[in-house]
Amino acid sequence: MEVRTRAPGKIILSGEHAVVHGSTAVAAAIDLYTHVFFRLLPPSESDTGSIELELQDMSLIFTWPITRLKEAFQETGSLLSSSPRSCSSENLKVLVGLVEEQNIPEAKIWLISGVSAGLYLYTSIHGFKPAKVVVSSDLPLGSGLGSSASFCVALSAAFLALSGAISVESQQHGWLTLNDSELQLVNKWAFEGEKIIHGKPSGIDNTVSTFGNMIMFKSGKMTQLKSGTPLRMLITNTKVGRNTKALVAGVSERACRHPDAMASVFAAVDVISKEFSTIIESPALDDVSVTTKEELIEELMEMNQGLLQCMGVSHSSIETVLRTTLKYKLASKLTGAGGGGCVLTLLPTLLSSTVIDKVIAELESCGFQCLKAVVGGNGLQICFS
Amino acid sequence: MEVRTRAPGKIILSGEHAVVHGSTAVAAAIDLYTHVFFRLLPPSESDTGSIELELQDMSLIFTWPITRLKEAFQETGSLLSSSPRSCSSENLKVLVGLVEEQNIPEAKIWLISGVSAGLYLYTSIHGFKPAKVVVSSDLPLGSGLGSSASFCVALSAAFLALSGAISVESQQHGWLTLNDSELQLVNKWAFEGEKIIHGKPSGIDNTVSTFGNMIMFKSGKMTQLKSGTPLRMLITNTKVGRNTKALVAGVSERACRHPDAMASVFAAVDVISKEFSTIIESPALDDVSVTTKEELIEELMEMNQGLLQCMGVSHSSIETVLRTTLKYKLASKLTGAGGGGCVLTLLPTLLSSTVIDKVIAELESCGFQCLKAVVGGNGLQICFS
Repeated sequence: MEVRTRAPGKIILSGEHAVVHGSTAVAAAIDLYTHVFFRLLPPSESDTGSIELELQDMSLIFTWPITRLKEAFQETGSLLSSSPRSCSSENLKVLVGLVEEQNIPEAKIWLISGVSAGLYLYTSIHGFKPAKVVVSSDLPLGSGLGSSASFCVALSAAFLALSGAISVESQQHGWLTLNDSELQLVNKWAFEGEKIIHGKPSGIDNTVSTFGNMIMFKSGKMTQLKSGTPLRMLITNTKVGRNTKALVAGVSERACRHPDAMASVFAAVDVISKEFSTIIESPALDDVSVTTKEELIEELMEMNQGLLQCMGVSHSSIETVLRTTLKYKLASKLTGAGGGGCVLTLLPTLLSSTVIDKVIAELESCGFQCLKAVVGGNGLQICFS
Repeated sequence: MEVRTRAPGKIILSGEHAVVHGSTAVAAAIDLYTHVFFRLLPPSESDTGSIELELQDMSLIFTWPITRLKEAFQETGSLLSSSPRSCSSENLKVLVGLVEEQNIPEAKIWLISGVSAGLYLYTSIHGFKPAKVVVSSDLPLGSGLGSSASFCVALSAAFLALSGAISVESQQHGWLTLNDSELQLVNKWAFEGEKIIHGKPSGIDNTVSTFGNMIMFKSGKMTQLKSGTPLRMLITNTKVGRNTKALVAGVSERACRHPDAMASVFAAVDVISKEFSTIIESPALDDVSVTTKEELIEELMEMNQGLLQCMGVSHSSIETVLRTTLKYKLASKLTGAGGGGCVLTLLPTLLSSTVIDKVIAELESCGFQCLKAVVGGNGLQICFS
């Protein structure tokens, strides 16, 4: 029995940082995925087997003999659970111990939490069955594109699909989507994985990755949006590492020093996010109305970027991207935490691929990584063939 | 009889563009001046003499024989007036005709309105007496630093000083300042000159140039501020020409398309300008409190710049200045209309001159012009010796 899943990454189209202070934000799925291949291995007579996790992009393979797993969980007992539940700190300690036994390169110790989350999801859904899991991703890791959430979603879905908890038509060919209650289940499990990786995730990343499309969220409440037209974005990864916590704290400190000014700034962002979702949901019937929509979106992106600079979360690498794309009259804004990370540039429908190639070449010559993405598309998908 | 005057240029510290939409703005005098030397010539027996205007920086000399002036104003009559009054369109036509008779280079036809304003002020205050006027300026022209207003203020003051309308102690040495009612008179005449140059000026530039210090203005109301500590700014002239009217219109159009978001943006700017003036007026007793003040000013500048970008009035040349100064951890914002023009960078008191020199060298290597200025100092001054 084997299955493939893929779960998309996400971008914040509007409202990052301000959302912490009560403003509306809009996030969207992108057609860059984390891919999971999962096979349950038949029990062998000579051997109880093992669980193998391969991280293809990093050429890393981790193997836990079933005997070792059983031994590790001897005291706390099996994690098997028919419904999503949080990992206790006791179990987390055992999981981290199991991961640390593996040969994780010094430079990749940040992998420990992700691998622990994967092992948690597996042992919670399948217990101690031998299996093979292969993961690869189109997403740069730790750049604010939701790589960890898509990892948790793709894993949860794959594990659930072969557990009987999800009644997928395994005879069908090609990529399948799940029904809403199944997606809810995947999303809940993925959120438990995210908690192991991030401590207190907002739940937005896994929700977008699971359900796809776009999501408007405010004060913890999420609303699904249906995009009237697909948006194409260039995502430029500045590769500048950033400290999200410090950036969020910096905005809060500025809000303390200048409460009235910042309240107005957050209010402006709130309106921009709402306008954004209205434009997104309005149907575009022809090229003219698509162009009009895109021009409004560009204007809102420029405004949002200005407000993010006002919050103090821009960075010289981001400014470099902005200046470069501005030369081609393209609108850009940072996405996510800022201080480096990724920058979005709208690629209008009528923009020639020659221009796109030139922009990308110029950005890559600055040492940045460019990814083209369609925004607001599929969420989680499953494939049996 | 001769006199020298100098009148400072100005910068907008906070609130440009938003002020059009009802927000508070703060402008300040800078220690870059327009200098005027003015001499009334004794009537000669053989000749009725002439009025000579020398624009030293441009190596231009204009000469109007008194006979020609009298002839030109034969129908409309002398402009002589004991109190400031507006130039009628009839008289303006005569003045422009007199200026166009001069040999003005094709590339400098924009000088016509300024020279007409000067000639208007002279003939209104002194009638048809022979005289020599020499003008030079530290200010780049047409870059939003108030060069035309300082030209009008310095000329008005010089003309008034030798007309008896101002009772200055001509025995005193060095630069003198005028009393408030005299300054009011100079300011009113200068405003009439500004109207010839700009059509409908706000009156802010000539007021700052006349009175110096800083001025907070909102909905046409001006309030003088007294700076607690001098601020040093680097003014970078991008030399990118801009269309102020189009920029102002662009902001208004954006405000029409996004009324709620932009109302919040303008509200944020209003608060920032008010905070700015509060900080400016608070006394700083030692280096620590100066540094604290400067850090707050830098933060407000960064916030204001973000909001200006949100209004859409930035420009790639401005971004280049921002990026360059950011490398040295210096805060910058555009000043005036944007879309090119000038950019302010705060030079903190404790910043070493080595760093300043490096920043200037780097900005100048981009083709920009750098001017160091002390902000919020003297207004108009007069010198007889």
